[in-house]
Amino acid sequence: MAKSHALTSNMGVDYVLVYRFATADKPKAQLRFEDLVRRLASVGLATEVRNGEDHSLLVFVRVASEEHMFGEIYRSRVKDWIHGVRPAQPAKEVRMSLEQEPLTEAERFRIIYQLMTNPEREGGAGITPKKGEWECVESMFALHDHVYNKEWIKKWSTQWLLSAQDLDELRDRLGEKIAFYFAFTQSYLTFLLFPSGVGVFSWLFLGHFSSFYAITVSLWCVVFTEYWKHQELDLSIRWGVKSVSTIETKRHEFKAATETTDPITGETLQVYPDSQRLQRQLLQVPFAIACVLVLGTLIATCFGIEVFISEVYDGPGKSFLVFLPTVILTVVMPLLSGMLTSAATRLTDYENYGTDAQYEKAYTAKIFVLNFITSYLPLFLTAFVYVPFGSLIVPYLDVFSLAVKPFSEDKAQMTGPKIGQFNINPARLRKQVIYFTVTAQIVGFATEVIVPYAKRQGFIKIKEMQSNRAKKAGGIAPSAAAEDVTEEKEFLARVRSEATLDVYDVYADLREMVVQYGYLALFSVIWPLVPVSFLINNWVELRADAVKICVEMQRPTPWRADSIGPWLDALTFLTWLGSITMAALVYLFSNDGMGPDGTPADIKGWALLLSIFFSEHVYLGTRWAVAHAISKIDSPGRQKARRDRYLTRERYYKESLDQTSRIPDMAEKGEEITRTGLEEEARRETLRTANPEDRFWARQRSWREAAQIGRGLIERNVPDERDAVERKKEL
Amino acid sequence: MAKSHALTSNMGVDYVLVYRFATADKPKAQLRFEDLVRRLASVGLATEVRNGEDHSLLVFVRVASEEHMFGEIYRSRVKDWIHGVRPAQPAKEVRMSLEQEPLTEAERFRIIYQLMTNPEREGGAGITPKKGEWECVESMFALHDHVYNKEWIKKWSTQWLLSAQDLDELRDRLGEKIAFYFAFTQSYLTFLLFPSGVGVFSWLFLGHFSSFYAITVSLWCVVFTEYWKHQELDLSIRWGVKSVSTIETKRHEFKAATETTDPITGETLQVYPDSQRLQRQLLQVPFAIACVLVLGTLIATCFGIEVFISEVYDGPGKSFLVFLPTVILTVVMPLLSGMLTSAATRLTDYENYGTDAQYEKAYTAKIFVLNFITSYLPLFLTAFVYVPFGSLIVPYLDVFSLAVKPFSEDKAQMTGPKIGQFNINPARLRKQVIYFTVTAQIVGFATEVIVPYAKRQGFIKIKEMQSNRAKKAGGIAPSAAAEDVTEEKEFLARVRSEATLDVYDVYADLREMVVQYGYLALFSVIWPLVPVSFLINNWVELRADAVKICVEMQRPTPWRADSIGPWLDALTFLTWLGSITMAALVYLFSNDGMGPDGTPADIKGWALLLSIFFSEHVYLGTRWAVAHAISKIDSPGRQKARRDRYLTRERYYKESLDQTSRIPDMAEKGEEITRTGLEEEARRETLRTANPEDRFWARQRSWREAAQIGRGLIERNVPDERDAVERKKEL
Repeated sequence: MAKSHALTSNMGVDYVLVYRFATADKPKAQLRFEDLVRRLASVGLATEVRNGEDHSLLVFVRVASEEHMFGEIYRSRVKDWIHGVRPAQPAKEVRMSLEQEPLTEAERFRIIYQLMTNPEREGGAGITPKKGEWECVESMFALHDHVYNKEWIKKWSTQWLLSAQDLDELRDRLGEKIAFYFAFTQSYLTFLLFPSGVGVFSWLFLGHFSSFYAITVSLWCVVFTEYWKHQELDLSIRWGVKSVSTIETKRHEFKAATETTDPITGETLQVYPDSQRLQRQLLQVPFAIACVLVLGTLIATCFGIEVFISEVYDGPGKSFLVFLPTVILTVVMPLLSGMLTSAATRLTDYENYGTDAQYEKAYTAKIFVLNFITSYLPLFLTAFVYVPFGSLIVPYLDVFSLAVKPFSEDKAQMTGPKIGQFNINPARLRKQVIYFTVTAQIVGFATEVIVPYAKRQGFIKIKEMQSNRAKKAGGIAPSAAAEDVTEEKEFLARVRSEATLDVYDVYADLREMVVQYGYLALFSVIWPLVPVSFLINNWVELRADAVKICVEMQRPTPWRADSIGPWLDALTFLTWLGSITMAALVYLFSNDGMGPDGTPADIKGWALLLSIFFSEHVYLGTRWAVAHAISKIDSPGRQKARRDRYLTRERYYKESLDQTSRIPDMAEKGEEITRTGLEEEARRETLRTANPEDRFWARQRSWREAAQIGRGLIERNVPDERDAVERKKEL
Repeated sequence: MAKSHALTSNMGVDYVLVYRFATADKPKAQLRFEDLVRRLASVGLATEVRNGEDHSLLVFVRVASEEHMFGEIYRSRVKDWIHGVRPAQPAKEVRMSLEQEPLTEAERFRIIYQLMTNPEREGGAGITPKKGEWECVESMFALHDHVYNKEWIKKWSTQWLLSAQDLDELRDRLGEKIAFYFAFTQSYLTFLLFPSGVGVFSWLFLGHFSSFYAITVSLWCVVFTEYWKHQELDLSIRWGVKSVSTIETKRHEFKAATETTDPITGETLQVYPDSQRLQRQLLQVPFAIACVLVLGTLIATCFGIEVFISEVYDGPGKSFLVFLPTVILTVVMPLLSGMLTSAATRLTDYENYGTDAQYEKAYTAKIFVLNFITSYLPLFLTAFVYVPFGSLIVPYLDVFSLAVKPFSEDKAQMTGPKIGQFNINPARLRKQVIYFTVTAQIVGFATEVIVPYAKRQGFIKIKEMQSNRAKKAGGIAPSAAAEDVTEEKEFLARVRSEATLDVYDVYADLREMVVQYGYLALFSVIWPLVPVSFLINNWVELRADAVKICVEMQRPTPWRADSIGPWLDALTFLTWLGSITMAALVYLFSNDGMGPDGTPADIKGWALLLSIFFSEHVYLGTRWAVAHAISKIDSPGRQKARRDRYLTRERYYKESLDQTSRIPDMAEKGEEITRTGLEEEARRETLRTANPEDRFWARQRSWREAAQIGRGLIERNVPDERDAVERKKEL
């Protein structure tokens, strides 16, 4: 049962740090390591050291002194309260308030992570993995809870839909950032049911490029994005992380240009002038142009070659030449796209943002541009260039004949079908859409889940073989496990294996979903089964991602978030653009899905533009109306927020009303004080001697006298009937 | 010098209440009056009663007990703090905090007003003028400060621009709501300088419908609206009213459909279901259609008659018949528009909003639709119907020949210029724009400022004559002033006169400005001198409004506001629409300002739509960029907000760090405790007997031992060169 124990128990370990000393010189590595454990101890964390693989140490960390953790919890809660995440000031007595609302596992891991990474002046240990002086700390991760993981996978794979409780549980384990990704995918999945139904109906009963489908799906996309915003807010309140994104975390990499002292607060400000940053940000323009040019040229070239070979060229080798563009794309695209991604990272680094949120936003924008081009440009080219202008452009594709010249034996083969009689292949667009929304999704799934798994298994095999060989050869490199105590062996083997896993990037998964949504919003009218494909894909994806996190990745550090971040803007943008492309596609291909016959004269510019104009403004109007309507929908989260607010207000009001209730009632006082003749005399004196103002206010003694005089005036002046009659006569 | 004293002194009066008893029966009026003064006294307000005109009493109110006012100040500040208007919890000791930041005059008047009008359970006197049981309280107003008013008018009329200090002073006197109107108008005025320059340049050197002018002015409009948003926020911080609009004030008129008790807070909720309100709101659709139909028909009919008479008809009476449409418009338009406005008010009342802000927003939307139709529809008709389609439509204008039949003597006169050869009058559009932007502005100014003044002077004369006549006839109605004490005579006469003045409606002035801005954003390309006209008009308007407030209106109650409210949306909408109309106008009239020759075939639909599409998206992109750029601009208000925030945070952080600094440093503790052999023994015991987890953590005694073991492991495992060489060989 030793094995099962190693899998079920984490030995009370909170975090594991991998300390790698392969590159540093020995004494320095030793000193640094000593510093590491000293610092961890200074914030109340106990450590145990074991041998790691390949010149590394495994440092096991657990909380030894609760005071330090409580200090961190209190600091974190004060921060939350100041930023409006918590409604009321946190109680100083952490222990007591923890009894009322115990820490979730995710919170505990976050707090400990902060305790280790926060700067020393903020009460942390100041360990920044892989950065600066702590480059030797290769990773910091919590151990997987295999019992829970097993249960989780089992549960998810046997139920159709995730309930709110499932997401809550996920959030308690992995933090809000990851929970938001799953909540979004789940929400998107259920949302896909409706367009799937409409899609199947359209596919069966309506013609190609059905305007019914286009309108329904476009409107539904609006509903989805707006509803998600609503739901996101609700979740953020439910999980107690609303406006957590306003807590700015400073980037370690930020380099201030100048350091100024705030004249009033005395705070030292690290400043990087916006004007300088703007200059750097302007580099985005050439970057975007470069992306469009580089990727666009590649895609257009491959597209041109493909069209040329499949529709114009008729020479020898056609059977294998048709694969040429796919080969080029498959080889060159990842290379280029990797280069551009790293350029985007470098550019964002260079823009030198002060906070993580700004950095992430700027980076997302660039990545979105890249993904937009690689994902949608081929379809844009086919739909809006090849189909309408094909017969004008195809003759120019002759340039490619140079490329295939070596293969052609006589000139006659080159002309193929007469260029003048060239016919557009209208099925090409549909084929492309099917490729992107079915084939590419499956391929993506495979590269994401199956390939890494196979690769990992392969690596393990290779390693085993190597070590066996080394053993046989009597090599000097002893296994890391050689010195392990027997009862820890299994456990340490598991930890060493987890240490080699990748770090989960929820960002990449989110990007994948948004890009997928783009196909639905922009092009799904071409092939109405797109939502069905996505529905199936995402059901699997949701489970596969869970498996991925459990099996192929280190346990992620549970970060907080109050939304899916900058991707929300991307969603809105895609929905907007969808209102334009859907209208354009429906108009362009309105002749029963066959597309214009290839000459631009047949397309009426004004009608195309009018449909776009109309559709876009309907979109804007609908968005406004839907957002307005959805804002009226109440939700448990909103109710909770209202209740918290009410209770806080109530408390403070009570305090203030306590004060006012002590104020003597002037109306009653007037009666109580029996004015003596002396006072009356004084008043009369005042009337004679004081200034006009004092005299004005001294004429009526109290509200009773004022009331009496008022009664008298009313008595005399109220209009009686005789008066009224006389006045009438007068007029 | 009595007169000058009456003008310079307000006798320490804070508010004057006009209590009218003309309609109520005598005993009830007396009782109610007694209740009034008693209630005022109960919140620490002293009263003096004097006779008023026409069956009314003047109730003078001043603060007698500071405690009640302090209570109200404290309550108001707590409210502000809870809503985030004030950064920190207000001090309970109001007197002390008032010494640090004294109340401005506006704040004092607002506080006293609230003291009088707030419900009794919130510590007020519960007097609601003109509403419910307090219908007899006709008005509640503070007295003008004539000395300051004189200075104010003098200062403003002698300087070109208002400084920030001028606006601050205004805000200190009249409150933020009015100050925001003046700040907006001032900002708009300075903003007009640039388009005025461009306009004069275009008018002198460029042809009609210059695209240069259109682009420049459209972009400048974007800059203006975005900059105003920025400035508005800055002003709201400067004046300490940021997010004051989130303090919801409940409407007295709100009628709850059901009353539910919140299950958690126990608060009694007055609920009116959104679904029911939505049903009522849907009435807006027929209302909007009715507005368009009613006003549109009127405008289109008059327009048709005008075109018919001036361009087709050639019979007798033409010289006076041309004025017929103007007469119809002048007579019918205000009637219709008044009816529709009151319908809008009733509709908004019927929609039964819970808070003032919601009500105002809904009302503004309706009024904006009305104003949009009356102000811009004539120009839309001329530019987009008459000019392009004129020659198609004009023949149908023959119907009007029936109307003028009585005047025509023979049929020949009716045909005028042959209908087939009918020519569009391209100058009509420009003439119309000049009418709306110059003539109408002057007429509006006159009806707003000069006419009321003349009317008032006339009324005073009539009243004097009447009372003289009454005196001669020995009539029984005695003058209200008959019983005045001599030294108060002048003062009371002044108060009685101020009591008859109108209540200032800043809303109407704001609407006027927004409508004016619409002409600039939508149509100014037709006649580029529009901004010049507005520049002059607004310079005068700004001063005239100041005079109006001082002379023709009661002193306004100083309300707070953090923006110009829903009109901001109207501004944004007009700017957006401007990006469409300007592009359309420039394209339609691109043949040197003469317009298309009247047949729609000449206009290329796709080119028109493309220019609109292009222009609108340039607008959207520019708006985004400008908003982004402007958000980077720092301002004194933002700096202040940052400072306040910093100080609050600093304080709370200090508190939390105090706590953590008390936590013993574990790293040091390790050294201090000299472990005895006994402890060592216990540890060894643990290793033998405890569970694996305890044994795991007991292997290393302290961080020092962990460090030592780590050093050992590094010592043994660090890759030396020989090792590295061997590994290379192996691979």
